[in-house]
Amino acid sequence: MTKYVYLFKEGNANMRNLLGGKGANLAEMTNLGLPVPQGFTITTEACTRYYEDGKVIGEDIVEQIYAALAETEKISGKKFGDLENPFLVSVRSGARASMPGMMDTILNLGLNDVAVQGLANLTSNERFAYDAYRRFIQMFSDVVMEIPKPLFEKVLDEFKENKGVKFDTDLDANDMKEIVVRFKEIYKENKGEDFPQDPKVQLMESIKAVFRSWDNPRAIYYRRMNDIPSDWGTAVNVQSMVFGNMGETSGTGVAFTRDPATGEKKLFGEYLINAQGEDVVAGIRTPQKISTLANVMPEVYNQFVDIATKLENHYRDMQDMEYTIERGKLYMLQTRNGKRTAAAAIKIAVDLVNEGMITTDEAVLKVEPKQLDSLLHPQFDATALKNAKEIAVGLAASPGAACGMVYFTAEEAVAAAKTGKKVVLVRQETSPEDIEGMAHSQGILTARGGMTSHAAVVARGMGTCCVAGCNTLRVDEEAKTAAFGDLVLHEGDWLSIDGSTGKVYAEQIPTVDATVSGDFATLMGWADAARKLQVRTNADNPHDAAVAVKFGAQGIGLCRTEHMFFEATRIAAMREMILSETEEQRRVALDKLLPYQKADFKGMYKALEGRPMTVRYLDPPLHEFLPAKNMTAEIEALAKELGTTTDKIVAKIDELHEFNPMMGFRGCRLAVRYPEIAEMQTRAVIEAAIEVKQEDGYDIHPEIMIPLVGAVKELAYVKKVVLDTAKKVMEEKGVELEVKVGTMIEIPRAAVTADEIAKEAEFFSFGTNDLTQMTFGFSRDDAGKFLGSYYDKKIYESDPFAKLDQDGVGKLVKMAAKLGRETRPDIKLGICGEHGGDPSSVMFCHKVGLNYVSCSPFRVPIARLAAAHAAILEKQGQL
Amino acid sequence: MTKYVYLFKEGNANMRNLLGGKGANLAEMTNLGLPVPQGFTITTEACTRYYEDGKVIGEDIVEQIYAALAETEKISGKKFGDLENPFLVSVRSGARASMPGMMDTILNLGLNDVAVQGLANLTSNERFAYDAYRRFIQMFSDVVMEIPKPLFEKVLDEFKENKGVKFDTDLDANDMKEIVVRFKEIYKENKGEDFPQDPKVQLMESIKAVFRSWDNPRAIYYRRMNDIPSDWGTAVNVQSMVFGNMGETSGTGVAFTRDPATGEKKLFGEYLINAQGEDVVAGIRTPQKISTLANVMPEVYNQFVDIATKLENHYRDMQDMEYTIERGKLYMLQTRNGKRTAAAAIKIAVDLVNEGMITTDEAVLKVEPKQLDSLLHPQFDATALKNAKEIAVGLAASPGAACGMVYFTAEEAVAAAKTGKKVVLVRQETSPEDIEGMAHSQGILTARGGMTSHAAVVARGMGTCCVAGCNTLRVDEEAKTAAFGDLVLHEGDWLSIDGSTGKVYAEQIPTVDATVSGDFATLMGWADAARKLQVRTNADNPHDAAVAVKFGAQGIGLCRTEHMFFEATRIAAMREMILSETEEQRRVALDKLLPYQKADFKGMYKALEGRPMTVRYLDPPLHEFLPAKNMTAEIEALAKELGTTTDKIVAKIDELHEFNPMMGFRGCRLAVRYPEIAEMQTRAVIEAAIEVKQEDGYDIHPEIMIPLVGAVKELAYVKKVVLDTAKKVMEEKGVELEVKVGTMIEIPRAAVTADEIAKEAEFFSFGTNDLTQMTFGFSRDDAGKFLGSYYDKKIYESDPFAKLDQDGVGKLVKMAAKLGRETRPDIKLGICGEHGGDPSSVMFCHKVGLNYVSCSPFRVPIARLAAAHAAILEKQGQL
Repeated sequence: MTKYVYLFKEGNANMRNLLGGKGANLAEMTNLGLPVPQGFTITTEACTRYYEDGKVIGEDIVEQIYAALAETEKISGKKFGDLENPFLVSVRSGARASMPGMMDTILNLGLNDVAVQGLANLTSNERFAYDAYRRFIQMFSDVVMEIPKPLFEKVLDEFKENKGVKFDTDLDANDMKEIVVRFKEIYKENKGEDFPQDPKVQLMESIKAVFRSWDNPRAIYYRRMNDIPSDWGTAVNVQSMVFGNMGETSGTGVAFTRDPATGEKKLFGEYLINAQGEDVVAGIRTPQKISTLANVMPEVYNQFVDIATKLENHYRDMQDMEYTIERGKLYMLQTRNGKRTAAAAIKIAVDLVNEGMITTDEAVLKVEPKQLDSLLHPQFDATALKNAKEIAVGLAASPGAACGMVYFTAEEAVAAAKTGKKVVLVRQETSPEDIEGMAHSQGILTARGGMTSHAAVVARGMGTCCVAGCNTLRVDEEAKTAAFGDLVLHEGDWLSIDGSTGKVYAEQIPTVDATVSGDFATLMGWADAARKLQVRTNADNPHDAAVAVKFGAQGIGLCRTEHMFFEATRIAAMREMILSETEEQRRVALDKLLPYQKADFKGMYKALEGRPMTVRYLDPPLHEFLPAKNMTAEIEALAKELGTTTDKIVAKIDELHEFNPMMGFRGCRLAVRYPEIAEMQTRAVIEAAIEVKQEDGYDIHPEIMIPLVGAVKELAYVKKVVLDTAKKVMEEKGVELEVKVGTMIEIPRAAVTADEIAKEAEFFSFGTNDLTQMTFGFSRDDAGKFLGSYYDKKIYESDPFAKLDQDGVGKLVKMAAKLGRETRPDIKLGICGEHGGDPSSVMFCHKVGLNYVSCSPFRVPIARLAAAHAAILEKQGQL
Repeated sequence: MTKYVYLFKEGNANMRNLLGGKGANLAEMTNLGLPVPQGFTITTEACTRYYEDGKVIGEDIVEQIYAALAETEKISGKKFGDLENPFLVSVRSGARASMPGMMDTILNLGLNDVAVQGLANLTSNERFAYDAYRRFIQMFSDVVMEIPKPLFEKVLDEFKENKGVKFDTDLDANDMKEIVVRFKEIYKENKGEDFPQDPKVQLMESIKAVFRSWDNPRAIYYRRMNDIPSDWGTAVNVQSMVFGNMGETSGTGVAFTRDPATGEKKLFGEYLINAQGEDVVAGIRTPQKISTLANVMPEVYNQFVDIATKLENHYRDMQDMEYTIERGKLYMLQTRNGKRTAAAAIKIAVDLVNEGMITTDEAVLKVEPKQLDSLLHPQFDATALKNAKEIAVGLAASPGAACGMVYFTAEEAVAAAKTGKKVVLVRQETSPEDIEGMAHSQGILTARGGMTSHAAVVARGMGTCCVAGCNTLRVDEEAKTAAFGDLVLHEGDWLSIDGSTGKVYAEQIPTVDATVSGDFATLMGWADAARKLQVRTNADNPHDAAVAVKFGAQGIGLCRTEHMFFEATRIAAMREMILSETEEQRRVALDKLLPYQKADFKGMYKALEGRPMTVRYLDPPLHEFLPAKNMTAEIEALAKELGTTTDKIVAKIDELHEFNPMMGFRGCRLAVRYPEIAEMQTRAVIEAAIEVKQEDGYDIHPEIMIPLVGAVKELAYVKKVVLDTAKKVMEEKGVELEVKVGTMIEIPRAAVTADEIAKEAEFFSFGTNDLTQMTFGFSRDDAGKFLGSYYDKKIYESDPFAKLDQDGVGKLVKMAAKLGRETRPDIKLGICGEHGGDPSSVMFCHKVGLNYVSCSPFRVPIARLAAAHAAILEKQGQL
């Protein structure tokens, strides 16, 4: 028979998956001989069975619960519903991963009309007992029975009004007794039956409520944000109550063994005398610093310090503890590895190594890769943020905080920034022409678009804060207004946005700059020593390349050449090329683009100081480079400049219009139809490489990447154009370079036929943005219409554009890697989608055996750390 | 060493792949002891090696050619370049599959300044010899050396002008001698060297030219149209020349053993006395019926009849033969299984079985499935068509011929048709609102869209002729004009279109109706007995369902429910549903749709008379049902009707706008967000099934298909909605039905995770239209921009929307079928994309082990026959 219930003394810290974090640690503390109010844990497996069985607790489990209950009563010497010595318990959730505040808790369970008197007798405090009882009735009704809370609060308010007092504490024992009567009446009115007097009934209903709360909307949301699978389930801990509110020798508090904000090694925490946990949370009274407990209850304080040290040494990590003092006796209610800021995480990890407590590998694992984000970007001043009022939430598209004045077009943003103003660019959505405006802004806010929309991708590349897809925002670019419901902002109004949380504030909130300590470099050194995966960056200009190198990038994995074509001077030639009617005309325009493109590549090669660079050839549909059809003035100007008619330009715009631009005339399809574009790009790459070699001595091996390949013959055709041109240029210059031609794997057909494609491709780079779109069959720009429903209904648990879908897209990646290696054993494999900077996706890339990941510059440290995690976990047999 | 050259006596008919059709049959005739001018065949492998070696004929092959040449000279007793008895040859292509006229031929090879005199001596006919020489120089220069033909024709014209005569035949031997001199001068001017006098040089250059001609544009196009792989290559036949133009006892002709138009069993053919093959082709003189040869040369005629009978009995099929009579002696130059009309193919197949010559399986294989198309649709009157002038060519999107007056909107088409006019509907592209107009038209012509565009799919479903994506057509719907270059048609002008060829004619061409013989039913009966695959149809209304049943459909594989929502009375409720702001409002609108939907299903169930039907739930993006944003009047009317504002409707249109509608809010995503839609559809299906069961006694097992599933949880969610509703309805009605819920596999992720999806899906239907789009990453509506370049550059050899891409999309289908069966061994597998009606794709479905294919009604016989081919070929070990 499966064991679904464990007494605390039966478990240990290694049973976290089964007992949840809280349960496992309560068991471990019990084993360590620490003062823990005894109880038992109902396992996570019981929770998943509860759901499988159609939200029923099986008979066998009920029996095990009753047996554990009896055993716990025996240990405590108390009895459920007893007049002399009533047994009271708390019922708390406890999942494998901490989900603070997301699920339900019931305290004081076991109180009924008899036990309340027992509690009064035992404590000689009738008011305390009846106050506990009415709290229990209220909590049970609200949390377990879903009776609206305000019904109870109204009664309390009436009593206070009638008595002319302000606080609950001004009500006496008789008031509480009467309130209990009234509360029980409310219960009966709503449920059609009496408030349950049988503590076992109370218990079973409460356990079910905790199981149910695993699936409440905020828990689902939290899991999605934190990559916690919904099938883990929660354990339930049933624990003897202890009371911190039994007078001046009682109290309750929380403490950390090190400062969770800075990592400093000193006991850090607070407590309240004569209070229960709820009171600390409610924030009505101000808690005391834990150091002052040394004066108030020196013995208890010393005992606590001993316990804290013992726990930290035992767990070899900073501990976050909850404790209660009941009439001078200390009880430990919880310990866990404490949450901490990124800065603290790094300091603690490095300190623990220096203290000889852990290895460098263990230190690396103690820092969550995702956390690094906050170290590398400005943040809001924490105090100012507390008082700020959030007006909307969008997608946390690019981390950091920004505060500036609202501007609605890229031009106006640039103009304002040049006068020294701080700017937040607000757009319906951004497009490639907005690049300059984005670069001059503190932050970018868009109404549309997902985690891989243009705004998000470009902002992450720049390291600029961005909140995207803010659904409640209505932008009117003509009227220059941004409306959030009734609140309407105009050009020049202040706006603050937080790209790490997606929150938006219509006010000025000061920011503090990012700071990186020496410990950061130490830890990243350990990470680099551990990892197997190389980390490259996605960068399109020398500045980004230099930033990425500073962050430890080992080269460029994706240089998107088209980003270079949008600058004012270049787009003219680009448009001339697109509007050409003959190959000859096209070549004339391409010749104008060549010097720009070559200069860009030279700048990048120099910034890379000899590191490798993969250049991806022109990818987007050509219509992106033309003005929109309704931009009459721009079309007229263009017609004049190119000596053609507006009609011809409009005809071309019509011709290039696409029903599904995502699946249209783009990628290598451009080079197949217009091979002269690939010729120009090849000439630019090779000439740049040769000149930089001659000027700086770097030995460059150009890597040329053909996008959107679906069939090997496509690649073979373009590869031939590239190699023929490269050969010609090298002969002209009298310099030989080793040139590699590879492809993106971003179309399902390419993944499925990777064995064929590897006959031509010398490397693969998985373009998991497009591969995700094609594999799922939804466009990132349109998915917003239904992804909300998908999360609500638990069909998807995470955004597949942010976190690689390992079951579907990942299966194609794995298949392609295997097929590719069968044909060409030494083929180099990398990933250059947005997933290259997502820790869980990086771990996947390690597992599949890729050679490198490539991500935006500011994510390079995250990828380095995640790659190290993967390698260390693999070494430990945990991957 | 590989043998690249075979003497005719070394080969046989089974060596077609190596020797090509012509070479294999020349060898076979030689073996049969028939009078064949001897020679040798250079294999198709030599051709592929020629390309692999960079368009060079390898030394070893050259040696083998020379050896075979020497042997052939010996057999003929003649010598290359000989003054006494000069050896002359023809050099002809001969691929594995017949590609008539697509590649090059060189005749009279071996003539030079010496041999021409030899020929004159031998024939005592100087004019004949020099005429042959000048023809050879001209042909060699044009075909082999690419010297422009008009240069030579100009000289001929000059001679005729100077002499004041009209025909070449009016020039005498001296003229011909002078012309030879002039022709050699032209050659030297253009090539910078003398016309080659060495017959071996002439021969090697000609062989190379034939190899090259395998890759000329018209050959590439022909292969693409006929599914011939480009890596097959062509063989080259070098054969001793015989001359049909040596006087009145010479002649040349072609003949069939049965009538290729009707299949009637009688010798059918014609000949010309004193002529060469070119003269028959040129059509200057009118050939005689072959029966008259019995009077002219009775011995030759009898010999020919014997040979023809012998060949038909030997090949057990109708033969198409070429022959030449040289000075009273008969030579066979070619025999092959003759091309024939569909009607003839069926008659011949059935007759051959009745004559005891072949088995029914063999008879089934003798009819090409594709051919049936022409039997089932009207065709142009062949005589009238000969004189018609084609003005444009589009895609042959739905077969048949149509002639009618041009109308530009569906409304006007309907109105005109109701007055008794024959209508051709001409549109930029069609949309679902055009359905009624399409149904009233003889044919449909669109300027945009591919083989699976809306127009093409719907037209095929209706069996209506359609030419789609006619690029040179410019439609101005406001001005009501259709322009083809300078030719502008107006409303009411006559237009004829051929949906089997894609050709468009601006005139009235009479059509003849389709006729189906009793032999057709006989043959299809044999096919049905042989096949393993079931054949269902795609139909959305009772009429189409009934047509399909008449054509032998075994049920409906795909009933697209949305096509039912576009009729005027229904679209109002549909729009009300879309514009609803709450679930309640939506339910009110859905209640209005329910009776229509139910009535449709009842009609279909009745038409099917108990056959199964798979109903696919609402699939297209909702914006397809709303008016376009610029349709102001329609929006105003709608606002009035629904009691809302135009602003609100425009806001909804904006909200529903998608960047990539193909990859947007559609398919099961609709049901996930609005489960009440699936509830209504389920109620309609179940109530219809129950009522038809009660009214007609058919035992119906509804099959409900959820579209666009990408993840098993999506399907599980919608399936639960369906089954809960079905249960409820069945309880209400007190009738139990077996209900199956399955899914389309049309998204790559579904194929890759088919093992998971099969946990919920009781059947899979491969939606290969969308699967092709997603797997290739291009939209069928946009691919036109680059597919042309892809065909030109031989990257793709066929349209993946018409013929299933077996290497890529097919791999996913295979994988999904395997994974699905692993989870659920009895899972039913079908295909309902357009490929279900394409013969090669049907064969693939058989190979992969699907249970059924589903195609448009008019393709059902084709699919039945193709399925039979697959089963028979498999039995013969040839699949």
